[in-house]
Amino acid sequence: MSQAHARQQQRKAKLHPIMEKPRVIIQDVSPCVEGGRYPAKATVNQAYTVRATVFMDGHDKLAARVIYKEAPQGKWRSKIMRSLGNDRWEATLVPEKAGMHRFRVEAWFDQWATFYDEIAKKHRAGVPLHVELQEARMHLLAALHSPRHRAREDQVDYLSEVIEGDDEYRIPDAAEIIAAAVDEFDAAEKAGNVELQIELILNDRVFKAMEALEERRFCTSTAQDLLVDVERTKANFASWYELFPRSATNDPQRHGTFLDVISRLPAIKAMGFDVLYFPPIHPIGQSFRKGKNNTLEAKPGDPGSPYAIGSAEGGHDAILPELGGIEQFRQLRAAAEDHGLELALDFAIQCSQDHPWLTEHPDWFPWRPDGTIKYAENPPKKYQDIVNVNFYAATAVPDMWEAWRDIILYWVSEGVKTFRVDNPHTKPLPFWEWLIQEVRTKHPEVIFLSEAFTRPAMMYQLAKIGFNQSYTYFIWRETKQELTEYLTELSTTEAKDFYRPNFFVNTPDINPHFLQTSGRPGFLIRAALATTLSGLWGMYSGFELCESAALPGKEEYLDSEKYEIKARDFSQRGNIIKEITRLNHIRKENPALHTHLNVRFLESHNDRVLFYAKHTHDFGNIVLVAISLDPHGSQDAWLKVPDDLVGGGKGFRVTEMMRDIDMPWGHDVQHWHFNPGEIPFAIFQVQAD
Amino acid sequence: MSQAHARQQQRKAKLHPIMEKPRVIIQDVSPCVEGGRYPAKATVNQAYTVRATVFMDGHDKLAARVIYKEAPQGKWRSKIMRSLGNDRWEATLVPEKAGMHRFRVEAWFDQWATFYDEIAKKHRAGVPLHVELQEARMHLLAALHSPRHRAREDQVDYLSEVIEGDDEYRIPDAAEIIAAAVDEFDAAEKAGNVELQIELILNDRVFKAMEALEERRFCTSTAQDLLVDVERTKANFASWYELFPRSATNDPQRHGTFLDVISRLPAIKAMGFDVLYFPPIHPIGQSFRKGKNNTLEAKPGDPGSPYAIGSAEGGHDAILPELGGIEQFRQLRAAAEDHGLELALDFAIQCSQDHPWLTEHPDWFPWRPDGTIKYAENPPKKYQDIVNVNFYAATAVPDMWEAWRDIILYWVSEGVKTFRVDNPHTKPLPFWEWLIQEVRTKHPEVIFLSEAFTRPAMMYQLAKIGFNQSYTYFIWRETKQELTEYLTELSTTEAKDFYRPNFFVNTPDINPHFLQTSGRPGFLIRAALATTLSGLWGMYSGFELCESAALPGKEEYLDSEKYEIKARDFSQRGNIIKEITRLNHIRKENPALHTHLNVRFLESHNDRVLFYAKHTHDFGNIVLVAISLDPHGSQDAWLKVPDDLVGGGKGFRVTEMMRDIDMPWGHDVQHWHFNPGEIPFAIFQVQAD
Repeated sequence: MSQAHARQQQRKAKLHPIMEKPRVIIQDVSPCVEGGRYPAKATVNQAYTVRATVFMDGHDKLAARVIYKEAPQGKWRSKIMRSLGNDRWEATLVPEKAGMHRFRVEAWFDQWATFYDEIAKKHRAGVPLHVELQEARMHLLAALHSPRHRAREDQVDYLSEVIEGDDEYRIPDAAEIIAAAVDEFDAAEKAGNVELQIELILNDRVFKAMEALEERRFCTSTAQDLLVDVERTKANFASWYELFPRSATNDPQRHGTFLDVISRLPAIKAMGFDVLYFPPIHPIGQSFRKGKNNTLEAKPGDPGSPYAIGSAEGGHDAILPELGGIEQFRQLRAAAEDHGLELALDFAIQCSQDHPWLTEHPDWFPWRPDGTIKYAENPPKKYQDIVNVNFYAATAVPDMWEAWRDIILYWVSEGVKTFRVDNPHTKPLPFWEWLIQEVRTKHPEVIFLSEAFTRPAMMYQLAKIGFNQSYTYFIWRETKQELTEYLTELSTTEAKDFYRPNFFVNTPDINPHFLQTSGRPGFLIRAALATTLSGLWGMYSGFELCESAALPGKEEYLDSEKYEIKARDFSQRGNIIKEITRLNHIRKENPALHTHLNVRFLESHNDRVLFYAKHTHDFGNIVLVAISLDPHGSQDAWLKVPDDLVGGGKGFRVTEMMRDIDMPWGHDVQHWHFNPGEIPFAIFQVQAD
Repeated sequence: MSQAHARQQQRKAKLHPIMEKPRVIIQDVSPCVEGGRYPAKATVNQAYTVRATVFMDGHDKLAARVIYKEAPQGKWRSKIMRSLGNDRWEATLVPEKAGMHRFRVEAWFDQWATFYDEIAKKHRAGVPLHVELQEARMHLLAALHSPRHRAREDQVDYLSEVIEGDDEYRIPDAAEIIAAAVDEFDAAEKAGNVELQIELILNDRVFKAMEALEERRFCTSTAQDLLVDVERTKANFASWYELFPRSATNDPQRHGTFLDVISRLPAIKAMGFDVLYFPPIHPIGQSFRKGKNNTLEAKPGDPGSPYAIGSAEGGHDAILPELGGIEQFRQLRAAAEDHGLELALDFAIQCSQDHPWLTEHPDWFPWRPDGTIKYAENPPKKYQDIVNVNFYAATAVPDMWEAWRDIILYWVSEGVKTFRVDNPHTKPLPFWEWLIQEVRTKHPEVIFLSEAFTRPAMMYQLAKIGFNQSYTYFIWRETKQELTEYLTELSTTEAKDFYRPNFFVNTPDINPHFLQTSGRPGFLIRAALATTLSGLWGMYSGFELCESAALPGKEEYLDSEKYEIKARDFSQRGNIIKEITRLNHIRKENPALHTHLNVRFLESHNDRVLFYAKHTHDFGNIVLVAISLDPHGSQDAWLKVPDDLVGGGKGFRVTEMMRDIDMPWGHDVQHWHFNPGEIPFAIFQVQAD
């Protein structure tokens, strides 16, 4: 016997190349970014679904589970996956803790389920089962002696790691159940009671106990663990408000300060925002300072662009003195926190020609043969107020990279946890991957928003290598088809696993063509789209006043705040503060609106009316949103909700949340009239029966 | 110099974690199967295109090339990729030799192209270029001292491997051109001739020389080489004819022999077929032999199903004596070769209860507690004439696996190079992967056709792990939408890289519903679809006679040839031999029809008329195919060919190849009338101007 065993071992060793290939195939596992090269993204308390294709030769039954660990020091846990048909399997996980989670999928030949199925079919067909019953008994005995059973007795998992499962198959008294079943089976056999024997074999408790105990033959696992970066809620669900602190003033001649911003906090909070974002707050260069409307020469008193960072007063770690210095900044940060508002700073890697680093570290900058510095250009345009650093200069690596990292770490030490990064696509990808990892290893709560508007591959790559949120093309998606296609891409392709869109409706750089001609109804339409389509949305100050005056033919604001101080009257007629407040409130109340995922576009019978459903993973919260995309005229729509989504054909009740109307949906199709003079959209919360 | 080098190395070593991440990103490379886990498929002398997404931060110019090797002992060669816009790049390769090719993609920051672009733009805008010209001179000098130049002088490649390129940048006298340009530049400077200096810098020859010489900064390469299994032509382009040799008779009472088959060869060859495939030719079991129409009990004289393999006369390496034995087989194989026909045998891993292995190797088979053998079942159905082997029985690995391999090797030694594998999806995938590799390592010319009709994941996996061709769902795709979607999937998704469809129009197992009611026109329609949509197609004997009598309500043939000998009269009225002959001839003459790839579906303005273009990689051969899918009535179509495909809006000439009519296409839209009583399709070869 031991000789035979030795031969067997020898043969197995010899056969390594054959036997190491798995019989059960697991593929197309998600979430998975570039084959596992980068972590997927998830959010605390928000469900994500692990899916896989699992199959084997023949017609036998399989089973699969996800094994996952919530933190490096955490325990492995497992959850059984359910079959969706056509070889697809899934299990939904709700992460409880932030951190780098890991998971793998395991699948195996489910011997008992296969055998059960065969016996049940034969039994239904009235086939005699003498031999099968003997086989069944052998299965039961084998399970009692399986490695899984022995592992359970020793209180260790089959994988020699303790796995805590909400795994439904894990029942504590499995072995007792099987042992008892064998005894009863034998007694029934003695008594000649075949029907009882069959009943014992087809028994549900025995089935569950067998799933718990039986050896999982041909058990295979994904080749590598996949990573999921589980982040705090604000990484995925937040409403951003952007303002220039210097404009927190009622007089364009008086430079606003952080203390002035403090007095704005209650109004911003009341509108329902929770992130307050400032363009750069650092000293602004004097050399080549830009004047109003981006003119080449500033007049005395012109404040300059905050993106021309650095002056004799300091660089990226300093504050423009006119804003009130670090002490006022600290006061503001604390006051913001008291209002439930988180500050977000701008991180723009570019320098004015007066930046201290030009003299302290000249070798980090590009110089020309005539001894002048190479400023930013887009030939024949010149941007002499800005110089770029040279990331691959001999002395820049690692010194300059570390200096930039330390700038971030400095602001983190000042309590800033969110950074909007300016034009990351014009700086090296390895730099960002390194910097974000350096910062988040120490401070996992830090959030980086990528402000890249460029081609899709780069937009996505920035998100893959670590940016937690991203600007998007939403700002230019206006028609029903454009919006449907874009949201479908973001929510159903691989992008859904790593790209978190932040839907800004405007920015200081982008005064969208649509809003330039839409008037107030267009602002309502864009706000409704952004707040309901994405978990993250943002608004730049002035949007609530429907500001849209543009430089002719451009998407730039006229009298852009980038080059001057703007004093605003937020109580002016026609503002949409009330509607934005309501939208943000509806977002908070409806978890289905906390993500861009789980969206389904529905029939409205009108090409200018976008109609969609958002739902939570468990369908506990379902929201129906209908938005006219026409800011100029009335539209009618016949809204159709598929039976499988809600109501099951019986009708249901909804609350229209903008108007606070409770009403029955009742029939198959609901008619709605959209009036641009009123509120050109409707948001329905589906009521439980 | 060597000290500087040492410092450089030190710096690199220190920076390892940062610097090892590439600045230039290469992703979505194809052909690529599961991230490179399996080889892609290609065919000798047939172009395949390598594509990749390539990008870097900022707005600088990039360049990319494919480096590839045609055989393990071959030389690396390279080909420059061209930019398609939106970060996509491609290069087309035409493999000259069969074998396992490998390739990688390399991309780099193209310094000179970037600089050239900047200078050209500034020059056009009339910007003074004093400093830029000095920078240009520095670039030229740097290129003369670049590692690439030094490598060229030493006759070794930069990669320390000799790479032979049709790489257009590789010009032999690059260094001379640059050195001369610098001299001329300096002379022009002395003479104050700025215009000449600019001309020298923007010179085309200098541009090409710089591309050849300049250091390829941030050069990066795909992480692993990707494999392409380049096979002989018949792997990708062949017309299969299937017959039961025992039916090569004019009398169902007289068992046909291989000698009878020899007399059929001229007719089969004349129809244009080049592969002749037989169901199993081995001894057939007596136990539980099936009678006519799959009845449970055979009558005396019933020949039984050839899939019940094995009897006292032998197993899978024996020949049914009634067929004429090995000597007649050898005669047939030689005669087939003389007719340009290749034999394909069936490889069906299943045994009759009389198979010699049941007694020689009982431990390879599954036995039941009562000592009986476990035969095939699909409860409550029983297939007692067939027993399956147990691939994972203790003594089956590797002995039985090797025994199956040796069966294949035996037939290979008898000159068989093509095997149609029966139901591979019910045998373990690791077995096939191992077996195919074992066989093809020694005999790379061997072709395995997977006869799997099951769910998509398994169909595709069999192709990934090594099956060279696959049966498909084509046989059940009948409508315009079904055919369009299916061909689009096969020709545009990852499947295009590994799955070679063999479009069988019927098989002994499948008498398609469509043909049961379509009459002769339906047979013409299906033949036209198969022959023009796929490089591989197949037909089972009787199709040319429009045989379609079925078991009621089933896709099975009535009086199936699987259970009896059928004598046919191939000259009978209504046969479609002439049309099949013509179709096979058209296929041979038009390289565009040698693959299922490069298909484009076009507008026909009729939902029952499928219209598509097939073209070779270089558009040297373009075929337009219009097929009415309606076997019962006339159809009219208005066929529209996009301007970008052919003609450029000017009209063009075609030859309709079924009717041999030369005609102008002339206008935008061509009207065609399809008559099921005539030929319900048209195949146009586009004529060069």
